[in-house]
Amino acid sequence: MTSFSKDRRIGRLAILLLLSEDNKSEQQELLDQFGWQGCTGKVGSMEAHKVVAAIETTAKKNGVIKSDIYRESHALYHAIMEALSGVTRGQVQIGSVLRTVGLSFSILRGNPYESEEEGDWLAVCLYGTIGAPVKGSEHETIGLGINHI
Amino acid sequence: MTSFSKDRRIGRLAILLLLSEDNKSEQQELLDQFGWQGCTGKVGSMEAHKVVAAIETTAKKNGVIKSDIYRESHALYHAIMEALSGVTRGQVQIGSVLRTVGLSFSILRGNPYESEEEGDWLAVCLYGTIGAPVKGSEHETIGLGINHI
Amino acid sequence: MTSFSKDRRIGRLAILLLLSEDNKSEQQELLDQFGWQGCTGKVGSMEAHKVVAAIETTAKKNGVIKSDIYRESHALYHAIMEALSGVTRGQVQIGSVLRTVGLSFSILRGNPYESEEEGDWLAVCLYGTIGAPVKGSEHETIGLGINHI
Amino acid sequence: MTSFSKDRRIGRLAILLLLSEDNKSEQQELLDQFGWQGCTGKVGSMEAHKVVAAIETTAKKNGVIKSDIYRESHALYHAIMEALSGVTRGQVQIGSVLRTVGLSFSILRGNPYESEEEGDWLAVCLYGTIGAPVKGSEHETIGLGINHI
Amino acid sequence: MTSFSKDRRIGRLAILLLLSEDNKSEQQELLDQFGWQGCTGKVGSMEAHKVVAAIETTAKKNGVIKSDIYRESHALYHAIMEALSGVTRGQVQIGSVLRTVGLSFSILRGNPYESEEEGDWLAVCLYGTIGAPVKGSEHETIGLGINHI
Amino acid sequence: MTSFSKDRRIGRLAILLLLSEDNKSEQQELLDQFGWQGCTGKVGSMEAHKVVAAIETTAKKNGVIKSDIYRESHALYHAIMEALSGVTRGQVQIGSVLRTVGLSFSILRGNPYESEEEGDWLAVCLYGTIGAPVKGSEHETIGLGINHI
Repeated sequence: MTSFSKDRRIGRLAILLLLSEDNKSEQQELLDQFGWQGCTGKVGSMEAHKVVAAIETTAKKNGVIKSDIYRESHALYHAIMEALSGVTRGQVQIGSVLRTVGLSFSILRGNPYESEEEGDWLAVCLYGTIGAPVKGSEHETIGLGINHI
Repeated sequence: MTSFSKDRRIGRLAILLLLSEDNKSEQQELLDQFGWQGCTGKVGSMEAHKVVAAIETTAKKNGVIKSDIYRESHALYHAIMEALSGVTRGQVQIGSVLRTVGLSFSILRGNPYESEEEGDWLAVCLYGTIGAPVKGSEHETIGLGINHI
Repeated sequence: MTSFSKDRRIGRLAILLLLSEDNKSEQQELLDQFGWQGCTGKVGSMEAHKVVAAIETTAKKNGVIKSDIYRESHALYHAIMEALSGVTRGQVQIGSVLRTVGLSFSILRGNPYESEEEGDWLAVCLYGTIGAPVKGSEHETIGLGINHI
Repeated sequence: MTSFSKDRRIGRLAILLLLSEDNKSEQQELLDQFGWQGCTGKVGSMEAHKVVAAIETTAKKNGVIKSDIYRESHALYHAIMEALSGVTRGQVQIGSVLRTVGLSFSILRGNPYESEEEGDWLAVCLYGTIGAPVKGSEHETIGLGINHI
Repeated sequence: MTSFSKDRRIGRLAILLLLSEDNKSEQQELLDQFGWQGCTGKVGSMEAHKVVAAIETTAKKNGVIKSDIYRESHALYHAIMEALSGVTRGQVQIGSVLRTVGLSFSILRGNPYESEEEGDWLAVCLYGTIGAPVKGSEHETIGLGINHI
Repeated sequence: MTSFSKDRRIGRLAILLLLSEDNKSEQQELLDQFGWQGCTGKVGSMEAHKVVAAIETTAKKNGVIKSDIYRESHALYHAIMEALSGVTRGQVQIGSVLRTVGLSFSILRGNPYESEEEGDWLAVCLYGTIGAPVKGSEHETIGLGINHI
């Protein structure tokens, strides 16, 4: 029977990688302990497709997904789109409705379930600011997408 | 000039209130230091309106918003709906598309900007699981809504 | 207790400012009597961000919102987006799905409630035509967004 | 060549039927002059399907559409859904996200274009309040749907 | 009484025109037998407005709709948008969220109902692939829009 | 390098299983030849969650997905939701906006790519009618969701 493991909350870890400030080593330890892969990056843009591209490129460069297998790109794409839903809260549009984002992102890959049969899952977290293209005229935003891979 | 304050990230604090496990006291200290108000709660449901009601009731009971002023309810309602967008990632529907959520939520009220003129803002964070109405068949989800009040 | 005032329907007044043809003076009288602020403008575009920019610029130029306070821009932005929802009815997209709009807009600021504690609210109304980028191939459209400020 | 007629703005007339207070006779005159059909009604509900049903029933009872021709119901249905988009501004949901509406509606049928070949069109306008299921905790809302029939 | 005719499924025929490989003559026979009009075409793009334009142009060139009557363009536009909903499944966006489509399309016009009073209807079908802008990184997609004309 | 195979169009086969009338044996042959699994069923409802449940139950009963592995349910759920997007074209709502569906569905599982590394994918197709809850007041609709599993 599948069972979601409290100890292996992949989404929570993806979020904390972006939000916590002092305990990076603790998070890296968790990744190592679970044998999970992960990476982080930053992107600021008024175009959603540039946010998507930045995350995809980082994931491929760091070996979190394999470039030449479409199912891996497909899994990542949908996780990114879901994370963008949380960031944009309604229409997945940025500059086309006159706003801009400044985001950090994390991508984790591992099995958050107790059963080995569940295989690998992806967690994509985006955290940063969204607002008018005017310095300071912004507030925070977060989005999380989780998908099987 | 308005300026978003790195030290006063209200969204980040709302998220950490739900995700961090050992440093509750540290977070309470921050709330006290800033003179912010806040509360947390839990709700599990297949109906979105019950999630909305649970958050509104908790916010009113704890004095985070004033019950008899509509502008405060209006600010909270839209912050909740934005947080629900992140949780549901697409259609703001739960049981009507055969899924269920188990969520913790936090509600913070304070001014995250350096200028006093910016007044109070609300941050509503929802974090927990979403999935099929079958134990274990679920993954994590997060949503954050921020609004001026 | 908050109570919505039949005499102070800010949305109705924002709409009538755009739709009525002979009684402008009557509407100006109402604005003066209530001590409300307001302005109107026009914008035609195939790009949603230009519609947003035109309304924001007009509101700031006419002092309906203060340029240097983000909470005021934030309130206006969401009112505009809600009005655009009514205009576009589904996807908040114009030229990207091969259509164009020719719009008049009004922006009002005041308290439409009986209780003074409700403070100021914004009403943004858009009215005009939407259709193919071919003269005459269009029909009417309206949108109204209301937000506390 | 098709040309939208300034004198025959069917959407504007549908809106004014709901918003103007003293010049009902003037509007009725316009309807008679153009040979257009129309009716108005009221509906308050937390369920979107009841709003749809109320408008459909009123349109059929008053002979604005023919009950036994599906293309007429189809035209009306989509006009109603577009008007509801303006009223709900995002998700076409009412009680399922804990809000309620109190609406007046108008339905007009006629040809707003200069060319006779354009045939009949429908305009459905909804105007009223939307808000929490608490008296007074509401603001105005409008929606307009226009469709060929 | 209106009745949907099993023998005259216009949507099914629009789909089969794109999907079946050997029985084109059989489909053409059906079109002739019913006295329906139809055409097919192809479009590949990262911009939704180019997909819309390609279909509109093909429909007009082949006389499926009359260019100078807006109600016919209006009917086609909404049928296209509904077909695009099926293709994009969520946001009607292509390149703006970093994906591309390669589509065949069919447009049929005729009365699929037993009653003559139902008049003409349009069926627009889009079938092909959607995916990353990388050869092979794509899967199939279909969309169907049906509207009275 | 991944490459989408023209011979193994899983979406096309899922569609033809529902639409073609005489060549069932030909389709079964293809399934056997590729070593794919598949099943079909029917569901009529005004509630989206019943459509989801009918498809999930049929898929599990026929062994197309394994009941006790969440990643398989997760893959199927998202494929169903995407297919429902095509059927509902906008809001994934049925009875809540006063309409009803009568659908056939097919579920296929197999690898439509030339590379073995792409593993299994799911195709869910829904085809039937959508319309008012009145016999005959309906038109055709289709939706296709494809996901890696």
